[in-house]
Amino acid sequence: MNNSIGKIYRLTSFGESHGPAIGGVIDGVPPGIDIDISLIQKELERRKPGQSHITTQRKEPDYLELLSGIFDGKTTGAPIGFIIKNTDQRSKDYSHIQNIYRPSHADFTYDKKYGIRDYRGGGRSSARTTASVVVAGAIAKQILKNVRISAYVNAVGEIEVDKDYTQLDLSKTDNNPVRCPDEKFASRMIKKIEEIKKRGDTIGGQITCVIQNVPVGLGEPVFNKLQAALAYAMLNIPAVKAFEYGSGFAGTRMTGSRHNDIFNLDGTTQTNFSGGIQGGISNGMDIYFRVGFKPVATLMQEQESIDKDGNKTIVKGKGRHDPCVVPRAVPVVEAFTAMIILDFLLLNQTHKLD
Amino acid sequence: MNNSIGKIYRLTSFGESHGPAIGGVIDGVPPGIDIDISLIQKELERRKPGQSHITTQRKEPDYLELLSGIFDGKTTGAPIGFIIKNTDQRSKDYSHIQNIYRPSHADFTYDKKYGIRDYRGGGRSSARTTASVVVAGAIAKQILKNVRISAYVNAVGEIEVDKDYTQLDLSKTDNNPVRCPDEKFASRMIKKIEEIKKRGDTIGGQITCVIQNVPVGLGEPVFNKLQAALAYAMLNIPAVKAFEYGSGFAGTRMTGSRHNDIFNLDGTTQTNFSGGIQGGISNGMDIYFRVGFKPVATLMQEQESIDKDGNKTIVKGKGRHDPCVVPRAVPVVEAFTAMIILDFLLLNQTHKLD
Amino acid sequence: MNNSIGKIYRLTSFGESHGPAIGGVIDGVPPGIDIDISLIQKELERRKPGQSHITTQRKEPDYLELLSGIFDGKTTGAPIGFIIKNTDQRSKDYSHIQNIYRPSHADFTYDKKYGIRDYRGGGRSSARTTASVVVAGAIAKQILKNVRISAYVNAVGEIEVDKDYTQLDLSKTDNNPVRCPDEKFASRMIKKIEEIKKRGDTIGGQITCVIQNVPVGLGEPVFNKLQAALAYAMLNIPAVKAFEYGSGFAGTRMTGSRHNDIFNLDGTTQTNFSGGIQGGISNGMDIYFRVGFKPVATLMQEQESIDKDGNKTIVKGKGRHDPCVVPRAVPVVEAFTAMIILDFLLLNQTHKLD
Amino acid sequence: MNNSIGKIYRLTSFGESHGPAIGGVIDGVPPGIDIDISLIQKELERRKPGQSHITTQRKEPDYLELLSGIFDGKTTGAPIGFIIKNTDQRSKDYSHIQNIYRPSHADFTYDKKYGIRDYRGGGRSSARTTASVVVAGAIAKQILKNVRISAYVNAVGEIEVDKDYTQLDLSKTDNNPVRCPDEKFASRMIKKIEEIKKRGDTIGGQITCVIQNVPVGLGEPVFNKLQAALAYAMLNIPAVKAFEYGSGFAGTRMTGSRHNDIFNLDGTTQTNFSGGIQGGISNGMDIYFRVGFKPVATLMQEQESIDKDGNKTIVKGKGRHDPCVVPRAVPVVEAFTAMIILDFLLLNQTHKLD
Repeated sequence: MNNSIGKIYRLTSFGESHGPAIGGVIDGVPPGIDIDISLIQKELERRKPGQSHITTQRKEPDYLELLSGIFDGKTTGAPIGFIIKNTDQRSKDYSHIQNIYRPSHADFTYDKKYGIRDYRGGGRSSARTTASVVVAGAIAKQILKNVRISAYVNAVGEIEVDKDYTQLDLSKTDNNPVRCPDEKFASRMIKKIEEIKKRGDTIGGQITCVIQNVPVGLGEPVFNKLQAALAYAMLNIPAVKAFEYGSGFAGTRMTGSRHNDIFNLDGTTQTNFSGGIQGGISNGMDIYFRVGFKPVATLMQEQESIDKDGNKTIVKGKGRHDPCVVPRAVPVVEAFTAMIILDFLLLNQTHKLD
Repeated sequence: MNNSIGKIYRLTSFGESHGPAIGGVIDGVPPGIDIDISLIQKELERRKPGQSHITTQRKEPDYLELLSGIFDGKTTGAPIGFIIKNTDQRSKDYSHIQNIYRPSHADFTYDKKYGIRDYRGGGRSSARTTASVVVAGAIAKQILKNVRISAYVNAVGEIEVDKDYTQLDLSKTDNNPVRCPDEKFASRMIKKIEEIKKRGDTIGGQITCVIQNVPVGLGEPVFNKLQAALAYAMLNIPAVKAFEYGSGFAGTRMTGSRHNDIFNLDGTTQTNFSGGIQGGISNGMDIYFRVGFKPVATLMQEQESIDKDGNKTIVKGKGRHDPCVVPRAVPVVEAFTAMIILDFLLLNQTHKLD
Repeated sequence: MNNSIGKIYRLTSFGESHGPAIGGVIDGVPPGIDIDISLIQKELERRKPGQSHITTQRKEPDYLELLSGIFDGKTTGAPIGFIIKNTDQRSKDYSHIQNIYRPSHADFTYDKKYGIRDYRGGGRSSARTTASVVVAGAIAKQILKNVRISAYVNAVGEIEVDKDYTQLDLSKTDNNPVRCPDEKFASRMIKKIEEIKKRGDTIGGQITCVIQNVPVGLGEPVFNKLQAALAYAMLNIPAVKAFEYGSGFAGTRMTGSRHNDIFNLDGTTQTNFSGGIQGGISNGMDIYFRVGFKPVATLMQEQESIDKDGNKTIVKGKGRHDPCVVPRAVPVVEAFTAMIILDFLLLNQTHKLD
Repeated sequence: MNNSIGKIYRLTSFGESHGPAIGGVIDGVPPGIDIDISLIQKELERRKPGQSHITTQRKEPDYLELLSGIFDGKTTGAPIGFIIKNTDQRSKDYSHIQNIYRPSHADFTYDKKYGIRDYRGGGRSSARTTASVVVAGAIAKQILKNVRISAYVNAVGEIEVDKDYTQLDLSKTDNNPVRCPDEKFASRMIKKIEEIKKRGDTIGGQITCVIQNVPVGLGEPVFNKLQAALAYAMLNIPAVKAFEYGSGFAGTRMTGSRHNDIFNLDGTTQTNFSGGIQGGISNGMDIYFRVGFKPVATLMQEQESIDKDGNKTIVKGKGRHDPCVVPRAVPVVEAFTAMIILDFLLLNQTHKLD
């Protein structure tokens, strides 16, 4: 059960970065829904390596092959199986680290846990596994229809957009390679990443995600609160260290008299410190949250490390790596979000008999 | 499945704040383990209302009745059923809000979701449900034995302890009612809460939790990462808005060359920005995380609100409420943490056949 | 997860026969449904010991205490917690078997599995745990409304009713203590049980269950076929050795040309060898199945056995035991059936978005 | 969750008979175990169509492609993704039934449930989906090592082997195309199938399965009894109508004094009416059970039926179908059994901390 996520709309994922293919099975897909396969492929393009000069230059076409569950352009209710072949597997880029534990990578923990490690790239620990999430999310988005999910980069290192999402035009996110809808900040972020890359270093960042038109009533009052499911999904994205929704950590410094969201007569609220969720259940207002990513661990500069036998060694990234992960993580954040919202919508259906 | 948490060591919870009892069933308990029931009761005392002048004065003895699964002081491997009777149910304290939606409470969302609301207190949305978590956590702690879990209040409003956990003596946490191991900061926090309470207002805060002696290898590489399970648990605690582990949001502003944890020859690391988890899997270093709580929504002052029919109204808390939730949330954070760690330890057993 | 059953409508059970109470938590209950508690109690009476001269004389009032999830006579959508206290615990009736493994009982396997055994009665292995199933089933029946579930005894030992269910008046099942709707066969069965009881022996039997007015479409095509869920539930009833639905084992001897159910123009079928399920999915016809029970293992006569240390010994049942389990198992079969049908109905709701 | 089976060792299946491929993902595979891929392929050959003159002449090579989770001949602990391409898809064989509901097929129920039907063959309802089960079972067999699982055909129509499994040499099962280890009965069965086939008719049958060297202690006392999991798996095999283990239906006619299995001093029993399971838990004796299959619904002769619009029509199977399903079902029964036993072995690991 460790490679599945979701209760009703559930993705089961498989695949390593350097095996023949990665892929997944999506269960719980309602039947009879139109699916535009080119839109799934388009989301994969947003995630794939080599899409711009500020991402890794590794080239993977990330071409989706759908194997089941869609017939004549519609979901059938049967599980959707899919694969994405691994084509650009320069395993030799990794041969130098076969017996080495890279700092802040999963090499050490993976080896200790399983006693066997596919040293060709990250193996199962590779961020490449998020491509399967993007597929499941892109299908979820098409099923959701009315719900709008918009993620964007709100910070790269210390460069942080000084407006909140309500002051931004979220349709502009994909206008630049860093995926920040504020052009001015986008330029600064891109410059920062270029500079970091030149030094062979990496940098962290943050993504904000906004979910609009969510119906009231999604989420559960005790366990399985909606925010808990979102946090769970986000913390499963490689490199994520932090999650906050609504007022977040800033809200911890506020008083109740300021933080409480006063109702309008129609049940909407004047402020939205709650972030669209009260008592674990969506209230119909915008849901928004922020996700923090650490800097990528693979550096294009020398670092001290150890090998399997506990000897000192030096590692230096070869091949092609991202200096900053957040631009490519935007579609992953959106995909997980779409999966969660759809899952909760379907789960909510069980509250009634027709 | 919405009222269960955990995969192997699993708590299923039931009960509303003003019904006859709350309680739960704990499944997946290994047999033959000594349980000291007084230690469970002691954890309940740490959570219960009325324990000090800075918490609600509501008096509930929170007396645990164990109904199954423990025989002659040992776990039997059968599920542990338990109840805690609700004794101090001043339902009349709530009669004034029967048809009112309190700001930033679950009244509105609960009513919209279920179409029926137990208006006597929070009903199922009450934070009282966390008592069941404390029971399951207290049992998990006794099963874990070697793992040490220590949570403490690191901030109340803007008063934030200026040391990290390694500079504090965590055995002193319960020496004061605010549960901050730094006496100087504890005094300031208590004073702040007294002041806030006097104004009929409330304030947010933060809890830090440290897990020590966790074996290497807990957690999964793709979904079900250890940090994701911890985030999920924490975001299910009422009033929690934020979670970060290791370097957290601060890590998003760092470069990889600074953030990477360089190995010592024995596999430990010189720094611990990773927070004890690499690639979703524990690495044997301390795991630490921070949880942010919003200010309590019930104020002892008048606020505008609406009733079920969309009419304007005024609400003001009656009865007995917490001006700041973090001191009582400390045992809840520890309990959820113990449940997760035990669950992952048991899950890890399935990686091998004897 | 071993003490829960059901995916959406899910019972989590706890309790041993000689502890303070048995009970359970029912999750996934839709809100706003009228519940008549006396009807639940009535189902418990049908299962309870001491109800007639052909069942055990053990007296347990089996009084249901509901602790949550029902308010003002309606389900609230919150989990229903309940307990049934154990009152007539003559543990001394069991002291003679404390270290003995009774033949064809769970003593040996339980002890080997858990290394610890609550020797007071069957402990967790006691058929008394089925009382929790009866509660969950009685609530499911009330939620199902239109679906009619009727189980009856169709055989005691070699005495087998020579008509199928369509030739019987199923409203007469409870007219006699053996729960066989055919009066003539009922008399013969009762006489057989009296005779067996006099000899201190026991006898097996069979129960047929019919489910009427099930909507078309319940069940899944590959795993989670409706018949698989029914078989799973039935084989979890103590003493059950066999399950067949529709044509069952007799169907294995037939040709396809005879066995195929030819359609009427309205989609109903002329025969019903399929037993109301085709390809794992209900087809709207009556679902019917048969369950086989072995003879009760506890005999009121001497049998050879062994103790924990592998020494020969003699056991003889003391106290009060059933000579034939099927009359009391009828409400258990119905309860499990109701739980499964409701679970699949709710699960089916997830096939569509409103 | 409807397309997954197993709790720890879990297969998630996908694919329709006439899409590009079927396949699955196996989660919960312990790492470091040698896997001989040719043995998996060999099990697929036992199931595949066209293997003898008494099975369907449809030719599918059923060639397994492993995509992940096995590296250098060993399991890695990562999920095993695999596909089997559909190559011999004579969809035109089905064009005549596009709008027709075949008697005793899933056409009607599938259409009513999903509102959309892949009419090319059985679609998701095709028995071809059992190939994925065979893969997961073949891997489970290799992990189990010491446990021996042997299924064989014990009846075709009314021809039933007159010996029980202890009197047969189970190594001879695959010596003949009907997979009956008794040569004399095998000949009669084959003749019967040939005769039935000539008439364009079909016939049912039965499979017995024996599991040897199962350790004591698998299975749970209340829900998730070992026999319940086996029954669930078997009733998910297409065409299965009945399941009995140990004494089965015959046991319902016995007295307790005859049915009880008296212990030997070493904890084994003199008889084995219990079928190797007591109180839901394996006792170390052979586990054996019988599975009943109805006759195949597709006939090579004309039958009355209806179309989607409720008009009368005539159907007659075209293409290539099995006159009797049991010979090809033998590896499926074994595969499901291996999956269940392995799942329970792994689950049992969670009863202890190292």
